[in-house]
Amino acid sequence: MAGRRDSNFMRYALDLAEKGRGRTSPNPMVGAVVVCGGRIVGEGYHRAPGKEHAEIAAIRMAGDHARGGTLYVNLEPCSHTGRTGPCTETIIDAGIKRVVLSLKDPNPLVNGRGIRRLRKYGITVESGLLREEARRLNDIYLGYHVNKRPYVILKLAQSLDGRIATTTGASKWISSVPSRRFAHKLRAEVDAVVVGAGTVRRDNPTLTVRHVRGRDPYRIILSGSLDIPAGSRLLVNNDDLKTVVATTGISVNRLRGKGLKGSPILWTVKNSARGRLDLHDFVSKAGSFGLQSLLVEGGASLATSFLRAGLVDKLVAITAPLVIGAGINGLGDLGINEISEAVRFDSAYTVRSGPDTIFTGYVSKG
Amino acid sequence: MAGRRDSNFMRYALDLAEKGRGRTSPNPMVGAVVVCGGRIVGEGYHRAPGKEHAEIAAIRMAGDHARGGTLYVNLEPCSHTGRTGPCTETIIDAGIKRVVLSLKDPNPLVNGRGIRRLRKYGITVESGLLREEARRLNDIYLGYHVNKRPYVILKLAQSLDGRIATTTGASKWISSVPSRRFAHKLRAEVDAVVVGAGTVRRDNPTLTVRHVRGRDPYRIILSGSLDIPAGSRLLVNNDDLKTVVATTGISVNRLRGKGLKGSPILWTVKNSARGRLDLHDFVSKAGSFGLQSLLVEGGASLATSFLRAGLVDKLVAITAPLVIGAGINGLGDLGINEISEAVRFDSAYTVRSGPDTIFTGYVSKG
Repeated sequence: MAGRRDSNFMRYALDLAEKGRGRTSPNPMVGAVVVCGGRIVGEGYHRAPGKEHAEIAAIRMAGDHARGGTLYVNLEPCSHTGRTGPCTETIIDAGIKRVVLSLKDPNPLVNGRGIRRLRKYGITVESGLLREEARRLNDIYLGYHVNKRPYVILKLAQSLDGRIATTTGASKWISSVPSRRFAHKLRAEVDAVVVGAGTVRRDNPTLTVRHVRGRDPYRIILSGSLDIPAGSRLLVNNDDLKTVVATTGISVNRLRGKGLKGSPILWTVKNSARGRLDLHDFVSKAGSFGLQSLLVEGGASLATSFLRAGLVDKLVAITAPLVIGAGINGLGDLGINEISEAVRFDSAYTVRSGPDTIFTGYVSKG
Repeated sequence: MAGRRDSNFMRYALDLAEKGRGRTSPNPMVGAVVVCGGRIVGEGYHRAPGKEHAEIAAIRMAGDHARGGTLYVNLEPCSHTGRTGPCTETIIDAGIKRVVLSLKDPNPLVNGRGIRRLRKYGITVESGLLREEARRLNDIYLGYHVNKRPYVILKLAQSLDGRIATTTGASKWISSVPSRRFAHKLRAEVDAVVVGAGTVRRDNPTLTVRHVRGRDPYRIILSGSLDIPAGSRLLVNNDDLKTVVATTGISVNRLRGKGLKGSPILWTVKNSARGRLDLHDFVSKAGSFGLQSLLVEGGASLATSFLRAGLVDKLVAITAPLVIGAGINGLGDLGINEISEAVRFDSAYTVRSGPDTIFTGYVSKG
């Protein structure tokens, strides 16, 4: 049975894991602590793909002190050889007697194999400690492997009364400086940011990470008609070749091989029954391209379509303490007539960000 | 100078004051603590109009121990004879040497006179300790005396995306049980609840205090046209004679002395330039009637009108963690085109209420 000391060590492992935020994709954030005789003798975290796994780092640091000790790790250790060797073998060789973990790894390459292998060698394995925190930490990685498609995060920056702009389209700045920094941190943690062509025409955004350190995500414009001004920053500022335009086959053909300004990557997406881009097909294309996560930044019509399609996994709503009255709503028609049909959330939480509040919720499915 | 111990005693005085919540109007909530030799020797709070003031209760409890002591009280002691005698004289007679208070009392009957009288008798008076908390506690009382009109609180119960109902008008229940209890607590603290006739037709509310203990406020229907169904609960359930209908002189004349079902109190309110009831005139009428506070509960158009008229002092927005998409917005056109023109708030705060969050903000003026 896991006790309070166990929780403390696991919490520390989670803190260590957190240090990798924004740098581990497509791998999860993992932290590990080796405890022997009640003392921490080793600790580590996963820094980036190809780099040492957390368990290995912690055991290496512990050296001989690992023998007879307990390993705390927020995700099931791997048992396969990827870019690094299997963690299970290192744990077994080090003489660890007990492994406490938060979650089984749903990645089909692991998915219980790690636990079984450790147990086979007589190691006690306990799972489920700080499960909720561990899930939240790796929501993208876990969601991706469970859903077998990119994890979709919808971000809204709105007034207290749910507007993302005034009637004249003014939206700068509804949210505060700390919230804008938070939004850039969010960008740095996803593989791609997605916007509609309307947002490109109206706001001409760069979608880069600026207010914090972090790598720029891919920038995807969804546009059936390719009505994207040639001077748009997303097309012009494409030295890193991370701009993608997702459109229909007809629109691609109409370009007659000329391509678009800035030579963005072109994806061909099916039309849905409603004559718009089929978002399921789009998300599937994004998955094939190797993207594990998509951040939908707007506008309202794209956000609404993603929600209607049941493709939003997580909503991040930044609400500023101001009231606009009539204006542009963050979300449009979701076909909801009764309150019982409303979109609800599992394990939502709200944090403060300067004067704003940031709501994060996991969309309840079914 | 007030130190940390002073803060602790004042915080306790505020806690005592809070016990009178919902029962002191038109008086403020006041708590008092007498400290001598570092020990609390007396404490008290104001329970209801006509009952002992907090200072008197605390000094009575302290008896001889009050001599040479310090009195902590969240509002300036009165120096006039109302339903009870002046507190200043009791303080002077008891031999209190030092008075620490949070706020000067803006009531024209006090307004610095209490402080001056105490100082005249050589008592040290320090003002401003826990000022913010003390302001928040008595926002209604203070606002009423500063503005010289009833204090107006606007309450919204909305979804995360700012809707108060679906497109079909369904709104039961957006907010959670704890939030509904909170809303009833709010009703019990104000002198009157105000709704538009549309809300009466649509929701047929009772506007009574049910989920908590507390007295029922007056119930005011604002309706220029008197389009109020005769079977409305607000008209029918009027045994306590607390239903008021505010309408135009023309509508009153049209009743030809017959009155309305349930014999509500009728107020005649001027028409504004826009051909609707003039809310400034309405609020002034409510003040003459003796109401210190009004809680505007809806609908959207009434809420919008109050905000547009600059008559909302405090906004309480209950936000539930659900998304409705297209629906009925809580607020309509406020004539705001730029974000810089948005309605903003001074010293806002957010608390949790079950799964919901409750935002409370004081509307910034000018």
